[in-house]
Amino acid sequence: LQRLFCFCPADLVGDDAAVLSVPPTRSLVITTDVLVDGVHFSDRTTAPADAGWRAAAANLSDLAAMGAMPLGITVGLGVPGDVTVAWIEQLYQGLTACLQTYDTSIVGGDVCRSPVITVSITAFGAVEPTRIIRRAAARSGDAIVVTGKHGAARAGLELLLHPATGEGLSSTDRASLIQAHQRPKPRLDVLPLLWKTLETQEFRVAGMDSSDGLADAILQICRASGVGARVDRSRIPMPSGLQQWVQTEQALEWALYGGEDFELVLCLPPALAESLVQSLVQNLGTGAAIVGTLTPTPEVWLVDALGNAPPVALDLAKGFQHFGA
Amino acid sequence: LQRLFCFCPADLVGDDAAVLSVPPTRSLVITTDVLVDGVHFSDRTTAPADAGWRAAAANLSDLAAMGAMPLGITVGLGVPGDVTVAWIEQLYQGLTACLQTYDTSIVGGDVCRSPVITVSITAFGAVEPTRIIRRAAARSGDAIVVTGKHGAARAGLELLLHPATGEGLSSTDRASLIQAHQRPKPRLDVLPLLWKTLETQEFRVAGMDSSDGLADAILQICRASGVGARVDRSRIPMPSGLQQWVQTEQALEWALYGGEDFELVLCLPPALAESLVQSLVQNLGTGAAIVGTLTPTPEVWLVDALGNAPPVALDLAKGFQHFGA
Repeated sequence: LQRLFCFCPADLVGDDAAVLSVPPTRSLVITTDVLVDGVHFSDRTTAPADAGWRAAAANLSDLAAMGAMPLGITVGLGVPGDVTVAWIEQLYQGLTACLQTYDTSIVGGDVCRSPVITVSITAFGAVEPTRIIRRAAARSGDAIVVTGKHGAARAGLELLLHPATGEGLSSTDRASLIQAHQRPKPRLDVLPLLWKTLETQEFRVAGMDSSDGLADAILQICRASGVGARVDRSRIPMPSGLQQWVQTEQALEWALYGGEDFELVLCLPPALAESLVQSLVQNLGTGAAIVGTLTPTPEVWLVDALGNAPPVALDLAKGFQHFGA
Repeated sequence: LQRLFCFCPADLVGDDAAVLSVPPTRSLVITTDVLVDGVHFSDRTTAPADAGWRAAAANLSDLAAMGAMPLGITVGLGVPGDVTVAWIEQLYQGLTACLQTYDTSIVGGDVCRSPVITVSITAFGAVEPTRIIRRAAARSGDAIVVTGKHGAARAGLELLLHPATGEGLSSTDRASLIQAHQRPKPRLDVLPLLWKTLETQEFRVAGMDSSDGLADAILQICRASGVGARVDRSRIPMPSGLQQWVQTEQALEWALYGGEDFELVLCLPPALAESLVQSLVQNLGTGAAIVGTLTPTPEVWLVDALGNAPPVALDLAKGFQHFGA
């Protein structure tokens, strides 16, 4: 435990609890995740530093999805007796590497014996109460914005599981897909541009992150808001190289259902959505795009503006059957 | 997961994270604990509802030890496939029963598969920045106040492990010792009385909780504050019945090293310490007492004002040998 203290700011440890100040006008946003070895990560595809990075990124992404900037995280770690200190240190290095990128840190924690490696993270952030992003705030007619490309994390996992595949990929594309899986980036950088886009407007954005897949995010927002959607398959941004490597339907499956891309899916009026996408592309160079429109009836359709495929109802239960390779 | 939502306030679930407001002038206090089946609790001595209560109590006690009142907790749960929904519901019932006693609640969580039951709790509280209780704030000359009796939780565990022991105990004493183990009470009730005692003074109190034992708490405060202590063995308050049941040295070992009593150990100037103890006894009827004094040299001595035993240096590493039965 003493050795891990070096990963915490010095003034925050040594008492029964950590003390942080929350800016006076902000609300506190809290999210928590439990990751278990063999269930959420495995040594086969994930070095401990990458497991740490991804765990931190997933929690920061949940904060971003609420419109909140991070204040810190706590880490509860359960480790079997045969795990080396080096393994644990690498996990914490991955955690702190991700946190430092977003100017935040580990503010507390607990380490104990456990038969299985378990990493429990709770992240806290602060948000102006008027700028909270909720799933239930979408309205029919809103455009659906994605802040970046989808399918990269799932494609990267495929390359790690089956290194012999993806022969046709350039080495840059290959590295970038693997990076998308190992070191995903929570989209906290989107928030200031979102605030700027909406600064003269009433702030109304519905949204969540696409950690469980783009299809899941759209369906959850629609369900929470009592609307439906038409999503144009040709407008879903996908990573470079993916469509040369795998068939279109496979690429689309990864983009819609692969998960762990940690982009934001935001619903707002079309004119504002256009401004936001323009701002994101100009300032961050991402693959941000409008991928569809919300409709009054509750169905969520995947349509093809180019006319090459019939409309398909998106459904989480059926998702994989529709797009199975 | 849906079934567990009924344990959370309705307005706090359904998004990627929970939103709470922190009173504007307060600091945020955060503490986290990981509990693992077989390590921190076991079905042999602990029903799931009791495991839940104790987990919540331990975290609320950490908040009390910092001087903070609770805002809420998050619960991350890892469960094997063979754990019943009834078991999980009972765990949450125990958690919420404890939280409700202190006007707080579960504000978020995560449930996942794990080979071993793991309960990760992060608790949040709020404190006026001038009223934070820290370990390092003690000064030589301060009196050491304990807010209640020690040894009860360890004695209760003994009764659960060896039901045939403790024949001489009255049924009331027996039930009360078992209760102390199964349903310990975090001492959040002490805080308003502490604030009142110090309201005309500069607020300076050092302290922590006695979750790892009274000896540990005194040693930690002394180490953090660069002082020593003389603790009078005859003044350590112990539960009714304990000294009739076991020998004095055994009772003292449980009081000093048993742990999980979740009382507060507070160091403050003698006159204020006297007022605080009086206020606690009058208002809460606890076994609060002054058990010793802080000294300029770093040693922590257990002394015997009655002259029946020689002074012993308290030492966590040696503790159990000194007092072994």
